[in-house]
Amino acid sequence: MKPPFRWGVLGTANIARTFVEAVRRTPDATVRAVASRTLPKAEQWASELGIPTAYGSYDRLLLSGDIDAVYIPLPNSLHREWCLRSIGQGVPALCEKPFTLTARQAASVVKASLKKGVPVAEAFMYRFHPVYERIRVLIANGGIGRLTTIFAQFTFALDDEISISANADLGGGALMDVGCYCVNAARLITGAEPLRASAFARCDKVDRTMTGMLEFPGGVLAHFETAIENFERRRLEIAGTDGAIVLEQPWFPGEAEGCFIHRRPEGDKIITAPGANGYIAEIEVND
Amino acid sequence: MKPPFRWGVLGTANIARTFVEAVRRTPDATVRAVASRTLPKAEQWASELGIPTAYGSYDRLLLSGDIDAVYIPLPNSLHREWCLRSIGQGVPALCEKPFTLTARQAASVVKASLKKGVPVAEAFMYRFHPVYERIRVLIANGGIGRLTTIFAQFTFALDDEISISANADLGGGALMDVGCYCVNAARLITGAEPLRASAFARCDKVDRTMTGMLEFPGGVLAHFETAIENFERRRLEIAGTDGAIVLEQPWFPGEAEGCFIHRRPEGDKIITAPGANGYIAEIEVND
Repeated sequence: MKPPFRWGVLGTANIARTFVEAVRRTPDATVRAVASRTLPKAEQWASELGIPTAYGSYDRLLLSGDIDAVYIPLPNSLHREWCLRSIGQGVPALCEKPFTLTARQAASVVKASLKKGVPVAEAFMYRFHPVYERIRVLIANGGIGRLTTIFAQFTFALDDEISISANADLGGGALMDVGCYCVNAARLITGAEPLRASAFARCDKVDRTMTGMLEFPGGVLAHFETAIENFERRRLEIAGTDGAIVLEQPWFPGEAEGCFIHRRPEGDKIITAPGANGYIAEIEVND
Repeated sequence: MKPPFRWGVLGTANIARTFVEAVRRTPDATVRAVASRTLPKAEQWASELGIPTAYGSYDRLLLSGDIDAVYIPLPNSLHREWCLRSIGQGVPALCEKPFTLTARQAASVVKASLKKGVPVAEAFMYRFHPVYERIRVLIANGGIGRLTTIFAQFTFALDDEISISANADLGGGALMDVGCYCVNAARLITGAEPLRASAFARCDKVDRTMTGMLEFPGGVLAHFETAIENFERRRLEIAGTDGAIVLEQPWFPGEAEGCFIHRRPEGDKIITAPGANGYIAEIEVND
């Protein structure tokens, strides 16, 4: 029997708990270690979640030689640094979205990854839900005609104003926190990078509400709406000349089953796909 | 008994038929005359629709002294000219949307209207449906918290490529043809004019698909999607900090009954309003 794939976790953010739960439910994977800035915090967290090893620094975990990959749930402002340090130690990294704060930072991480031959990935778990494979095939088979527009929406009302999500120094704001899903989905569906982008935002220290547009090759247009101060709304619409696809739950498509509406001139149809926990699907793929 | 309000119609476009049907169903209003560029066409149309008088020129109808107002369903490129001529003859005008092709043209018509004291109105009939009054009251009463974003959508696939809607010389294109509804709705809901605008479009001779954004005072953001080459989709979403309003049929809200979804943290609720034919409602208001 193959020994389980060993994960290390850098930090004790809430999202890290979700990840640890998902690893637990993933065959052949285990969380071997957690690191925090102070050892007592790491030990408390490790004991609570049943993780064998705790470290009082992120570097110690990377140097331990006891893990196959590291999961990075740190604040956005630290993503670049810890991706680079992981690569430097030869440890593959799965980094929470957004990957980095700027395109230049992202390029520096990719460059280091390619140079050292150490993989890094951005943790957009929604991509691994089977519903997206179903959509890819539907579009490829002409189910909506020629692709013309993509509309993505992810808004919610942050109830904790001292949250990292509203902290400019830590890389917060609507676009970084949840708007990145919208941009990522447009890149996933088109399989391309945008040629132009434009956005309007209502800001205080960070962008609290934002609308944005992206132009892709071939004149495909994407637009999105994101907020950390609004009533929660989620939606993904993929439209073409002859039909459209509507996902009411694009970012967490459902563990029991995933579904979307396929709209055609002859009527709407609900298409279902197998359910999945996006985190588990992501861990399986990254294993 | 008050004599009926007498309408004259400039031109024989398809939309003019809809208008004539609506006037027929409006108490105290009648279509007295129609004008076309050639008398036989006007006569044929008048006989078909039971209109007493036909003119072989638009000017003759305006000079007839036999009408209380004129309806202008001409191609977009002619709206400014015939609004100005109507005002010049002292005849109030109801002009099909979009009012004119540019803000400067619109300003020149408004200036003439004010100077002569002759009213002109843009025929956005959807505004007069009772569903919008219900929405106005709901928002004023705090039903969605502070207004943050408006999303409007109006797309369809033009099946006639020689249509006026795709003709650049006649003021065609997605924004002029149906996108103007989206922009108008954002102005209706905010009760304000945008401070900034930005748009991306896929164009040939005209814009065929467009996404656009508008920023309103107080940081309210509107965005829209319009097309004359896409699968038909219509939607209006009005969002705030504590709730949202979704209209699936914003431009023709229904003659039997109008409805929208009121979304709140405690759940979605369908709100109904009395039904109406937008054209009739518009004619009643303009009488």
